[in-house]
Amino acid sequence: MTLPRFSFTLHATSGKARTGVIQMQRGEIRTPAFMPVGTAATVKAMKPEAVRQTGADIILGNTYHLMLRPGAERVARLGGLHKFMNWDRPILTDSGGYQVMSLSELRKLTEQGVEFRSHIDGSKHMISPERSMEIQRLLGSDIVMAFDECPRADRPRDDIAASMELSMRWARRSREGFDSGAEHAARAALFGIQQGALHEDLRRISADKLTDIGFDGYAVGGLAVGEGQEAMFGVLDYAPDMLPADRPRYLMGVGKPDDLVGAVERGIDMFDCVLPTRSGRNGQAFTWNGPLNLRNARFAEDTGPLDDRCTCPVCTTYSRAYIHHLVKSGEMLGAMLVTEHNLSFYQALMAGMRTAIAAGTFAEFAATFRRDYLGSSA
Amino acid sequence: MTLPRFSFTLHATSGKARTGVIQMQRGEIRTPAFMPVGTAATVKAMKPEAVRQTGADIILGNTYHLMLRPGAERVARLGGLHKFMNWDRPILTDSGGYQVMSLSELRKLTEQGVEFRSHIDGSKHMISPERSMEIQRLLGSDIVMAFDECPRADRPRDDIAASMELSMRWARRSREGFDSGAEHAARAALFGIQQGALHEDLRRISADKLTDIGFDGYAVGGLAVGEGQEAMFGVLDYAPDMLPADRPRYLMGVGKPDDLVGAVERGIDMFDCVLPTRSGRNGQAFTWNGPLNLRNARFAEDTGPLDDRCTCPVCTTYSRAYIHHLVKSGEMLGAMLVTEHNLSFYQALMAGMRTAIAAGTFAEFAATFRRDYLGSSA
Repeated sequence: MTLPRFSFTLHATSGKARTGVIQMQRGEIRTPAFMPVGTAATVKAMKPEAVRQTGADIILGNTYHLMLRPGAERVARLGGLHKFMNWDRPILTDSGGYQVMSLSELRKLTEQGVEFRSHIDGSKHMISPERSMEIQRLLGSDIVMAFDECPRADRPRDDIAASMELSMRWARRSREGFDSGAEHAARAALFGIQQGALHEDLRRISADKLTDIGFDGYAVGGLAVGEGQEAMFGVLDYAPDMLPADRPRYLMGVGKPDDLVGAVERGIDMFDCVLPTRSGRNGQAFTWNGPLNLRNARFAEDTGPLDDRCTCPVCTTYSRAYIHHLVKSGEMLGAMLVTEHNLSFYQALMAGMRTAIAAGTFAEFAATFRRDYLGSSA
Repeated sequence: MTLPRFSFTLHATSGKARTGVIQMQRGEIRTPAFMPVGTAATVKAMKPEAVRQTGADIILGNTYHLMLRPGAERVARLGGLHKFMNWDRPILTDSGGYQVMSLSELRKLTEQGVEFRSHIDGSKHMISPERSMEIQRLLGSDIVMAFDECPRADRPRDDIAASMELSMRWARRSREGFDSGAEHAARAALFGIQQGALHEDLRRISADKLTDIGFDGYAVGGLAVGEGQEAMFGVLDYAPDMLPADRPRYLMGVGKPDDLVGAVERGIDMFDCVLPTRSGRNGQAFTWNGPLNLRNARFAEDTGPLDDRCTCPVCTTYSRAYIHHLVKSGEMLGAMLVTEHNLSFYQALMAGMRTAIAAGTFAEFAATFRRDYLGSSA
């Protein structure tokens, strides 16, 4: 029996919230899913087996970072990203489009693609839809993202429209580039990315064009770029509905725990974000009762766990007092422990949402979550 | 049956090299033993369960660091160092004497003790034999070190002699201070520290005075302070023999793998050193064929393990190419993996020495080690 290349089965809905499973050759992805970010072939401060133990089914790798260091061709010679970093389950790679605009220097954007200089060593590079597909193929990605431009949401409407149209032409070239790598395309999936910022009509045009091309899944792009939660939820009130209901919907770069709950409520199935790992390195822990700054002196003799409802290996072993000491002392173990807890918390949140959706009680779950997490009854 | 407070059983000797076991209430310590350094209540970049998995029976905690942050009284209120950092096996604490002289500011040394300012926040502190014993008791140390002064070996002989005499008076006060904490003294051990730098006659006087006071074990102090391996081995040719043969002998702050082999060869039973952990954070890996600098570009596509004779979780999972990438990228996982390997290598080296001594083949082991590690037949 051959495993499916890519299948998405919806098991239940509760309001607009959906739960299901994506089947791929490297394993299944339970949705709603949170993907820890493994920027440079490592989920920072975590061994991959510990990432898996938090409950992650899939991680994300960054095309921009990996093409610059160690280089896509090098990763391919070393047997691909999975082998290189010891993660044998699915990996989603972004296209490089977002980070080449936010991190690199001396960018030149043309119809063909983007020329830029590396933020690491100043070396010159070019990335286009075709090159992005090639890089993601060389990495051995399971879920490949179309190459797009992600403009700031506050740019003039005409700029947003032109950028979206360019991204849709690039989406078609991405589809063609992906399909031309027949061997990889036979086992990987390609997702398109909806753009249009905060404009409903542009989001509609983008969704129609992507659906026309046809993808395995659809991302809502161009959000979480500074527009704020209210504006983001405003777009999510309609944007996911524009995308095919039988395909997973992925909200890129999101977010805070309350962002995730609100987005699942609006029909999103997949997420990635650096927040749990980055916060972990800064001593910020996420809990069911809201975030905690472990640098705070009030934790110096607090013998309780980071979160008394959490069953992760950190919460069953270490006190807030110890982690406070580690964070204050700049000890690497502090970053390691808070990161591990945060990723565990994020996965527990996703599992909680999946269970509630399956039970048809998502609204109650969301209300209870907000009461405890935000301290509000909203 | 009550476990012994402290017992040392020699199982075999091979030349001057000895192997045996120390029994304490929190567990046994196989000798020759290497103690990873857990300066600030953490063996840097390692979870304690991973430290144990490398084969460590005991770790070291630093009195100087812990008294300043989080503070000995605080650690005591939190249930002691073992509970605080999740290490339930023996912990040896140093006396603070060495680091107060090397790290702190504005030191004033008197017969009573040392006044100094914290290198962290400039706060004023005092440490004396009595206070050192109290701190180590508050931490809940299993092996307590006498408070001493550790002068540079290149100071004039008269200074070395005066310093040694002061340390011997402090050793007696340490003994009395330790014994006055009856509850702690009933389950912990106290080690004295021989001084005298490179002077055989002073080392003899120091050994006689310590033996006269009586300790559970004896450290050779005042070495590994810049004198070089040849001078250190010169002292080790006679100093361990001056100490009671039925007690463990501990060489403080040593050392490189070839230092350990040469010291065991001269009758040393215990070691501690930051080298495997500090080198791990700097991307230097220890192997049976000598140290490797993982930053070196020659490892960029090297698919082999750090050490092809090593069976540690790092060597069975990750390539030199991957670790090179992590180290070059400044990723925390690079520090974590090389540290774990280095501590595993150090424990494998100790285990190899113990086996060879038990088999009566230590000389062959040492010769083979030097041939492979140093690339010499010496």
